[in-house]
Amino acid sequence: MVLSETAERIKSMEIRGAGRIARAAALALADYAGTLDTSDPDVFRREMRNAADTLTGTRPTAVSLPNAVRYVMRALDSFESVEAGRSAVVRQAAAFVEESEHAIGRIAAIGARHISDGDVLMTHCNSEAALSCILEAHRQGKELEVYATEVRPRGQGLVTIRALNDAGIKTNYIIDSAVRYFINDVDLVFVGADAIAVNGAVVNKIGTAQIAHAAHEARTNVIVAAETYKFAPRTILGELIEIEERDPYEVLPREEAERLPFVRVRNPAFDVTPAEYIDLIVTEQGAIPPGLAFTVIRDYLGWKIEELR
Amino acid sequence: MVLSETAERIKSMEIRGAGRIARAAALALADYAGTLDTSDPDVFRREMRNAADTLTGTRPTAVSLPNAVRYVMRALDSFESVEAGRSAVVRQAAAFVEESEHAIGRIAAIGARHISDGDVLMTHCNSEAALSCILEAHRQGKELEVYATEVRPRGQGLVTIRALNDAGIKTNYIIDSAVRYFINDVDLVFVGADAIAVNGAVVNKIGTAQIAHAAHEARTNVIVAAETYKFAPRTILGELIEIEERDPYEVLPREEAERLPFVRVRNPAFDVTPAEYIDLIVTEQGAIPPGLAFTVIRDYLGWKIEELR
Amino acid sequence: MVLSETAERIKSMEIRGAGRIARAAALALADYAGTLDTSDPDVFRREMRNAADTLTGTRPTAVSLPNAVRYVMRALDSFESVEAGRSAVVRQAAAFVEESEHAIGRIAAIGARHISDGDVLMTHCNSEAALSCILEAHRQGKELEVYATEVRPRGQGLVTIRALNDAGIKTNYIIDSAVRYFINDVDLVFVGADAIAVNGAVVNKIGTAQIAHAAHEARTNVIVAAETYKFAPRTILGELIEIEERDPYEVLPREEAERLPFVRVRNPAFDVTPAEYIDLIVTEQGAIPPGLAFTVIRDYLGWKIEELR
Amino acid sequence: MVLSETAERIKSMEIRGAGRIARAAALALADYAGTLDTSDPDVFRREMRNAADTLTGTRPTAVSLPNAVRYVMRALDSFESVEAGRSAVVRQAAAFVEESEHAIGRIAAIGARHISDGDVLMTHCNSEAALSCILEAHRQGKELEVYATEVRPRGQGLVTIRALNDAGIKTNYIIDSAVRYFINDVDLVFVGADAIAVNGAVVNKIGTAQIAHAAHEARTNVIVAAETYKFAPRTILGELIEIEERDPYEVLPREEAERLPFVRVRNPAFDVTPAEYIDLIVTEQGAIPPGLAFTVIRDYLGWKIEELR
Amino acid sequence: MVLSETAERIKSMEIRGAGRIARAAALALADYAGTLDTSDPDVFRREMRNAADTLTGTRPTAVSLPNAVRYVMRALDSFESVEAGRSAVVRQAAAFVEESEHAIGRIAAIGARHISDGDVLMTHCNSEAALSCILEAHRQGKELEVYATEVRPRGQGLVTIRALNDAGIKTNYIIDSAVRYFINDVDLVFVGADAIAVNGAVVNKIGTAQIAHAAHEARTNVIVAAETYKFAPRTILGELIEIEERDPYEVLPREEAERLPFVRVRNPAFDVTPAEYIDLIVTEQGAIPPGLAFTVIRDYLGWKIEELR
Amino acid sequence: MVLSETAERIKSMEIRGAGRIARAAALALADYAGTLDTSDPDVFRREMRNAADTLTGTRPTAVSLPNAVRYVMRALDSFESVEAGRSAVVRQAAAFVEESEHAIGRIAAIGARHISDGDVLMTHCNSEAALSCILEAHRQGKELEVYATEVRPRGQGLVTIRALNDAGIKTNYIIDSAVRYFINDVDLVFVGADAIAVNGAVVNKIGTAQIAHAAHEARTNVIVAAETYKFAPRTILGELIEIEERDPYEVLPREEAERLPFVRVRNPAFDVTPAEYIDLIVTEQGAIPPGLAFTVIRDYLGWKIEELR
Repeated sequence: MVLSETAERIKSMEIRGAGRIARAAALALADYAGTLDTSDPDVFRREMRNAADTLTGTRPTAVSLPNAVRYVMRALDSFESVEAGRSAVVRQAAAFVEESEHAIGRIAAIGARHISDGDVLMTHCNSEAALSCILEAHRQGKELEVYATEVRPRGQGLVTIRALNDAGIKTNYIIDSAVRYFINDVDLVFVGADAIAVNGAVVNKIGTAQIAHAAHEARTNVIVAAETYKFAPRTILGELIEIEERDPYEVLPREEAERLPFVRVRNPAFDVTPAEYIDLIVTEQGAIPPGLAFTVIRDYLGWKIEELR
Repeated sequence: MVLSETAERIKSMEIRGAGRIARAAALALADYAGTLDTSDPDVFRREMRNAADTLTGTRPTAVSLPNAVRYVMRALDSFESVEAGRSAVVRQAAAFVEESEHAIGRIAAIGARHISDGDVLMTHCNSEAALSCILEAHRQGKELEVYATEVRPRGQGLVTIRALNDAGIKTNYIIDSAVRYFINDVDLVFVGADAIAVNGAVVNKIGTAQIAHAAHEARTNVIVAAETYKFAPRTILGELIEIEERDPYEVLPREEAERLPFVRVRNPAFDVTPAEYIDLIVTEQGAIPPGLAFTVIRDYLGWKIEELR
Repeated sequence: MVLSETAERIKSMEIRGAGRIARAAALALADYAGTLDTSDPDVFRREMRNAADTLTGTRPTAVSLPNAVRYVMRALDSFESVEAGRSAVVRQAAAFVEESEHAIGRIAAIGARHISDGDVLMTHCNSEAALSCILEAHRQGKELEVYATEVRPRGQGLVTIRALNDAGIKTNYIIDSAVRYFINDVDLVFVGADAIAVNGAVVNKIGTAQIAHAAHEARTNVIVAAETYKFAPRTILGELIEIEERDPYEVLPREEAERLPFVRVRNPAFDVTPAEYIDLIVTEQGAIPPGLAFTVIRDYLGWKIEELR
Repeated sequence: MVLSETAERIKSMEIRGAGRIARAAALALADYAGTLDTSDPDVFRREMRNAADTLTGTRPTAVSLPNAVRYVMRALDSFESVEAGRSAVVRQAAAFVEESEHAIGRIAAIGARHISDGDVLMTHCNSEAALSCILEAHRQGKELEVYATEVRPRGQGLVTIRALNDAGIKTNYIIDSAVRYFINDVDLVFVGADAIAVNGAVVNKIGTAQIAHAAHEARTNVIVAAETYKFAPRTILGELIEIEERDPYEVLPREEAERLPFVRVRNPAFDVTPAEYIDLIVTEQGAIPPGLAFTVIRDYLGWKIEELR
Repeated sequence: MVLSETAERIKSMEIRGAGRIARAAALALADYAGTLDTSDPDVFRREMRNAADTLTGTRPTAVSLPNAVRYVMRALDSFESVEAGRSAVVRQAAAFVEESEHAIGRIAAIGARHISDGDVLMTHCNSEAALSCILEAHRQGKELEVYATEVRPRGQGLVTIRALNDAGIKTNYIIDSAVRYFINDVDLVFVGADAIAVNGAVVNKIGTAQIAHAAHEARTNVIVAAETYKFAPRTILGELIEIEERDPYEVLPREEAERLPFVRVRNPAFDVTPAEYIDLIVTEQGAIPPGLAFTVIRDYLGWKIEELR
Repeated sequence: MVLSETAERIKSMEIRGAGRIARAAALALADYAGTLDTSDPDVFRREMRNAADTLTGTRPTAVSLPNAVRYVMRALDSFESVEAGRSAVVRQAAAFVEESEHAIGRIAAIGARHISDGDVLMTHCNSEAALSCILEAHRQGKELEVYATEVRPRGQGLVTIRALNDAGIKTNYIIDSAVRYFINDVDLVFVGADAIAVNGAVVNKIGTAQIAHAAHEARTNVIVAAETYKFAPRTILGELIEIEERDPYEVLPREEAERLPFVRVRNPAFDVTPAEYIDLIVTEQGAIPPGLAFTVIRDYLGWKIEELR
């Protein structure tokens, strides 16, 4: 697929999902490197940079996109000929895709090690990474019980309890307000992430911060499961991430809303959990305390401290 | 109405609501005192006690019921003739009914004093006492803005925002999970209570404890509005109140629930907010810090420390 | 002195200081009772109440004034003849004056018991009650060292260090900003109070809350020394006391201020220390934890919970 | 300027200010490298090290001095000829000077990103770095309001409010004791630093720790603005930095002091704010959470963990 | 037994144990009242007061002694004839003895209500009151598991585990250092008290404060079981109770100690647990939150706030 | 000594102690490298890896063993000929042994810098590293006082107080339960470590976590002294380290234990102190805040983030 086409499809949200966007961008760069008809390394590098900027510009708020681009572009940190540069880009893109595709499996394997036989877990929303850890622990024969929240307004909790039910895991389904009520029965909270800031704060589905806060009060450990491309180098403090507000009619039916002129529905999609409420982040590269978020951002994603703003 | 009839109607939940139950019991005792055909004070007292026990036994978990009965029965702490006792009972019952009926108005007047012009408030569920404070402050010309939660699963938040809208108060409607997200924009949390324990802990609609916890983290004051008959002398630690679980199909439709054999819906109706997360309790008798809960229980409801269990 | 004259002199601030205002009001009521020429108890009571209201109205923000008036007026809770009422008022006023005049001495005796030989103390502003405890402990032969703050903008710390120096007590003089720096060397903080709220919060010279906050962080005990007439029955939460702002030119010279049109000087006279940062309140009636503030307000000052607003 | 002359002028405090000292030392080393008349790399290196030690020894407590020297001397980590070493030293010194001179501008640009339109800020003392962020945000058209403290005993707050007034920024001027009183009206605290320890603790003007402590209690973010040469590799725990005490007569006039033989003025210049009370450190290299202090110390200043003592 | 003889036997520690001392003093006063040969009420009162002082002076640090004496002497608050006073004293003494003797049984009944089937409890030292609650809950058929500490240096834990073993209760025996390690497995801590201060702080066997601190960190409830005569009216802050140090050779054998001249054994018998780490105090009069300690001291023991020092 | 023999002697616990095991393994690898008769680098590397695995497998729970092996094996990260590889291994092994043998001396020198003249220290168990710091500070002429705990059940405190007594250091010997009682008299806690997790949590003798918890409450600094080979790369959260339980008869004599069938002795050897309760970790490589634990693990021990599980 031509680079411009990929860029277009990311922009139009035809390509969606953090993983899929990231892999598409990596492959587009590899493809583009193959099409560049020059033997001048400087030209090659410049053209690649332009291509990278084009891709990054398509969805300025997608965390995985600049990570994938940056990962691939590290291939050009030093190279001697266009040929060498080209194959380095291709190799790096392939590595990214491979790691990304196997990430969930690796996260499941690592995360499951932190779940003990007999544990009662709590989860929120429907995170593939978090669920994979629970399902893997169950497959290993550990006896588990899970509390899953409803997740208003879109009700992703229903998808979660269906998956847990299908696996034969004993599951309790509760409303979002009942988290603190049940937290003392829970041994471990397992959630996913939409983005992880430099200081280890986690951006995730609205309600996550309340769960982590209640868990912290009850001295219950909180584990976040997330692919490394969720680490957001440009986000120093989670608080500064701009949180998108979704369609108000998800919360209040339009006809009711229209009858209530003084009422405004506020429907933020995410909230930010401070690092001090998180005990461990399980990535496909290993399991880290949140204080090592920057190490991941630097070592695996190739960002430097100068780029922190 | 004959005492036995009132007892029956409380038992069958024909008479419902903390205030209505309490007033019916008080009046039934007054009525019963009028029917007792004896001139022996000891007999009179014994019969009245039996009547009191009959009423108290109809709904062992209703907080207002023993309070009303106890309040009226204090008339018999000392009396000289049956005639004197009878009229003391009638007077005390009338006083209870009068205070109870005017309680909301007094709470509104006191609570509104704690709301300043320009305040942004948050409320949860649909508490008549809490709302009355907000509406009274609005009537006094204070400019207010309110955050009201949805209150899954029964959605009492909708009733609340309709009332606020009708009064022309600027209102934000949010899901229960978004409380911590918006708490920094809030100046004051105002909620009601189903029961208040001896140590000042508050039993209220599920989700209240999470809101108070988030408010405490953000150093936002929390005010509870409640009639004194909500104070529960038999509840030493809020934690020990038995919390009723409601119909699971309120949360998960029956047909879905039946397809998910490993899933159990847990649907507790209330939770307990510790006193340390509450700044003020506004009652019709005055506004008190939670540490004075026992003083109310003793001075207004007539319970003694020996009755704390 | 005629009642109206006393009222006038309180209003015009000719009579100043919490203690002096309180005693003048008590004596004015006693005097006034002597002048009332009636034998009808109801008339007597009504006239006395009018007099009480007149006095209370002269300085609505003076905490000691309604306390003194209320203390004296309790003499009229029940009386049989004007003669009996009159002498009860006179007796009660005399008791108030006597207790008030001896209060500092009693506070000193009780407070000194809480100071151990070798203690390093910290104090703020120039509280007669707090200083009396320190001086009394010194007189008893305990070896002490004191940290005293400067107390911008009026520099009352200078008065304090002079008194300590005259007594021969080793004293360290520090700027207000250096409190947290030295707090680990301090065993005990001793401050006064301008008012004490129902929930035990203390209103005192601006800067007190910061000292108590630093002491709490360092697990250093904080003792407040105050006469009981400083307890403020109408103040449920210290936070709701209206804090007066003083002359801006105390902080910034007028000629400088006038050159800086975008600059506004904010000069609040007091701040509020929450009860959780206070370990003990020493009064002339005894030493109490802040949780007993309401007990003092009720038992010694005669206020009832219904009067809490 | 000859090296020995620069050393002398730093020692005599003729050259003052963290930035100026650092740049003078860097240039002196470059100059000295040019004067060394040897072709033996070992001799060259040894002589340069002696020069470095001479400079570092002039002001053992100046944080910026060893940082500048170390930065320049990294040029000699590996070099092949005296000529190459010489020009590496010159280049490195020039880079240091350039970065240092542009540091404030870069800090202003990064720091201003963290200030939102409508923010109320608080600052303490007169930090060029902190002020530059506020002024830059104002220049970008953001509407701001600032609380500035008086900063006893030398009153640097006056310099600050003049600068803010000149820029037309709405400013509130308060005494140091009033910080906690106003902190709930503040959205963001912005201060400078004299030194930053390996664990992210910040040494700054006395009073800073109290402000950060109050901000932490009120959940208000604290941002420190500082050039990287303020990072102090030899300071593991901020607590262990030796804090200089200044002239007592700054606080108490000599004639008064001499009349008070039992009084000793304690006048520490700085205090230490623990990292847990700081949210972000803005440097010219980027904005980091305090947990990354060591990364800056290692990556930009060239210190190794073995040098942490 | 003659009063002087009882006084002597208390002084010589022939009569030991808080309960036995208290009852002996009450009975001695009743006996003494019977021997006083006067018909002048003033003489009678004066003689009784002297007797009370004699008894109180025998063991100034025994908490139960002044409580018992005060309880009996309340009989003389008002009396009309010597005869009436005498019989009032006798009645009051009998009431004290009766309540004291039945106290443990009542505590057991109340305390057991707070233990749920399946609970894991932790206890420290060998408190009759705390153990009685556990044994009663077991007798009621609740399945329990207990963690009991060793209690160095006198090993009272051994007595405890023998009692638990004899009752057939599953018991874990741990060293004192292992409390925090196991606290997450514990649902409820149950300890006794040697004294309870006015602010609700509890003086008990050394190590209790560490257990309560660990329980607080883990959000585990702490219940103290104690007779009301353990409430210490003269103790405002638990911290100010003078803690006795016991024989050093309990900790280090004398021959070893004598070989180590630079070593001093410190062997305090008790420590003080702050009220904020205690959830409930179970007495024979009822179960109260620690904030009601003064209420017990006033209502049951007859002390007034003026006696708080 | 032949590799297999060393492996055997580590397995059989003939070689014991973290340091001795580590050095034996390093030397065995060096020796083994010398015996490998091949000139094929790939064969050499493979054989060395097998040897490394053999050694690591002998004691899977010994923290120092994989660290030593990993340290030596880093010599083979890149090498050109078997000869070069062999000598690199030998050099690396020698470096490890040298550093390890001098580690205590270096720790003593660094640790002593953090002890001030006049400090009162507390220590637990008998850590060579922690004691060396105290003794070195004493040798430097600093006047010290130490609180040393008894350390049930094996009483290692006795060994500690003998060493302190022999050095002439004023020592207080206390039971383990008395830590919180004396913590306010202590300036600094100094303990050793059995293992240090990636997030800075410290595994050490049971009771350490309680001491650090009490120190944290009292704002007393806690310093851990440990050789870098105690850092445990496989331990993400200290909590997940498996804690060995020792012989129950250390705690309860067998004959007593056998008489108590319902009693089970729990005798864990270690507990885990969270990083937030630790201020500084002193290693032979430098002194670091716990947040840098991973840096040590990576830079000195050669582990990568991918190996974190």
